[in-house]
Amino acid sequence: MFDEAPSDAWAIRFGDGAPAEADRLGRFFAHRSVRRFTPDPVPEALVRALIGAAQSAATSSNLQLWSVVTVQEASRRKRMAELCAGQGHVEGAAWFLAFVADHYRLRHALAGTQDEPDALGTTEMFTVSAIDAALAAERLVCAAESVGLGICYIGAMRNDPVGVAELLGLPHGTIGLFGLCLGWPDETKPAEIKPRLLPDEVWHRETYRTGSVAEYDERMAAFYESQGMDASIPWSRRSGRRTQHRGVGSRHAWGAILRERGFCTGDEEP
Amino acid sequence: MFDEAPSDAWAIRFGDGAPAEADRLGRFFAHRSVRRFTPDPVPEALVRALIGAAQSAATSSNLQLWSVVTVQEASRRKRMAELCAGQGHVEGAAWFLAFVADHYRLRHALAGTQDEPDALGTTEMFTVSAIDAALAAERLVCAAESVGLGICYIGAMRNDPVGVAELLGLPHGTIGLFGLCLGWPDETKPAEIKPRLLPDEVWHRETYRTGSVAEYDERMAAFYESQGMDASIPWSRRSGRRTQHRGVGSRHAWGAILRERGFCTGDEEP
Repeated sequence: MFDEAPSDAWAIRFGDGAPAEADRLGRFFAHRSVRRFTPDPVPEALVRALIGAAQSAATSSNLQLWSVVTVQEASRRKRMAELCAGQGHVEGAAWFLAFVADHYRLRHALAGTQDEPDALGTTEMFTVSAIDAALAAERLVCAAESVGLGICYIGAMRNDPVGVAELLGLPHGTIGLFGLCLGWPDETKPAEIKPRLLPDEVWHRETYRTGSVAEYDERMAAFYESQGMDASIPWSRRSGRRTQHRGVGSRHAWGAILRERGFCTGDEEP
Repeated sequence: MFDEAPSDAWAIRFGDGAPAEADRLGRFFAHRSVRRFTPDPVPEALVRALIGAAQSAATSSNLQLWSVVTVQEASRRKRMAELCAGQGHVEGAAWFLAFVADHYRLRHALAGTQDEPDALGTTEMFTVSAIDAALAAERLVCAAESVGLGICYIGAMRNDPVGVAELLGLPHGTIGLFGLCLGWPDETKPAEIKPRLLPDEVWHRETYRTGSVAEYDERMAAFYESQGMDASIPWSRRSGRRTQHRGVGSRHAWGAILRERGFCTGDEEP
């Protein structure tokens, strides 16, 4: 698995011919979300090495404002799966990692000193935590994929941030951002590389240019058909429907819950 | 450069012995922020392949709510460097990539249809954009480092989001999140691997556990000394000072500027 030639992975991803340089970068094009895993264990020492890789990602001002909580006990994993829209792979993966925006560690380290980190309360510093946690997670993912592991991010971990905080014992100043399932891919039920917008639709030269998603809508129709999905609804309309309603769980209240947990309360007007 | 043995990179990063599994993941521990580049060009086709790698990262519901704007014209790059606290490497890197949260593309694609993506206005959907842009950027970075390139993230691109939007011609529904300098590292002025908190301080088992940064404060004191910095101020206090004040530029007003640009305006109470 994950063993397409770079040019083949590029062609599945983008439909068009790969640049010559793609040959050196092939593994990075071959990501897919893996939801079916073998029951084989992933050694704890390998997970520790992967967390070391995550920590090796850049972090703004070296503040390291994120944490990982792993959920391995069966009953607790079951509860996490319930909190994540009942997704079976949350229960079935060898490891489940919850990535957490963490302002508590620094606040706690400085409690009682004169260096109270007040500005952690700004929306900017929440943004820093979210970006840095994601940089860390994706370095972990690239490292994991390089040894044959598969992953699936779980955005549904934001459906019920209060329930997640209870399950993980998260203190004030922390909030679960996203989950990550990790395990050995079940090669009998392979996951597919999903097509993306052309690089030239996402990449703007010097200034932002309004593009078109028509080419992508067509390409995705073929993908939907190959997956046995309704190909008559284009990607753009599907995406519109995804973002038309108030969202699942408490996602419409994510801003209010962030504030309750100590984030985004300290802004000033411009 | 970037050629430490995995166990050496781990030892610099964490001070303690590397797990055996680290040998297979060595390259991922060796990241450093590179601020000195050679004048050698990075071919445009390689950048396109790297953007293809970025797009191969996971993206929530395949929404792809981010864009990249490259700034290559000399006078415009100079202006970008001014906007980014005058950092010389912003001007000196072969490429400068601005990562942008992009809700405009989908809104534009659906304008005039019945699928108006209203929920893009929630804080949740801004969070999605920030996380997905960061996942994409870090996959690009891992790919770039795998062929010997060096990078430096530029959080200072958030100092003046309005100025950045003007320079990049960003429409309503987009905002610059962070920049990325990309080029060939100048091996005569090598960048150092920076120590991080121990994996076991960042990794919590089952539930969040309050740890201690004392060990890290000691380890960082040695690092500061090796860099000719004042070793008497520990990491925790430095970090407290970094987050004590209202922040540089308009960072204290990032929340208000997000709302002005069409983000985080559509939340409901829990």
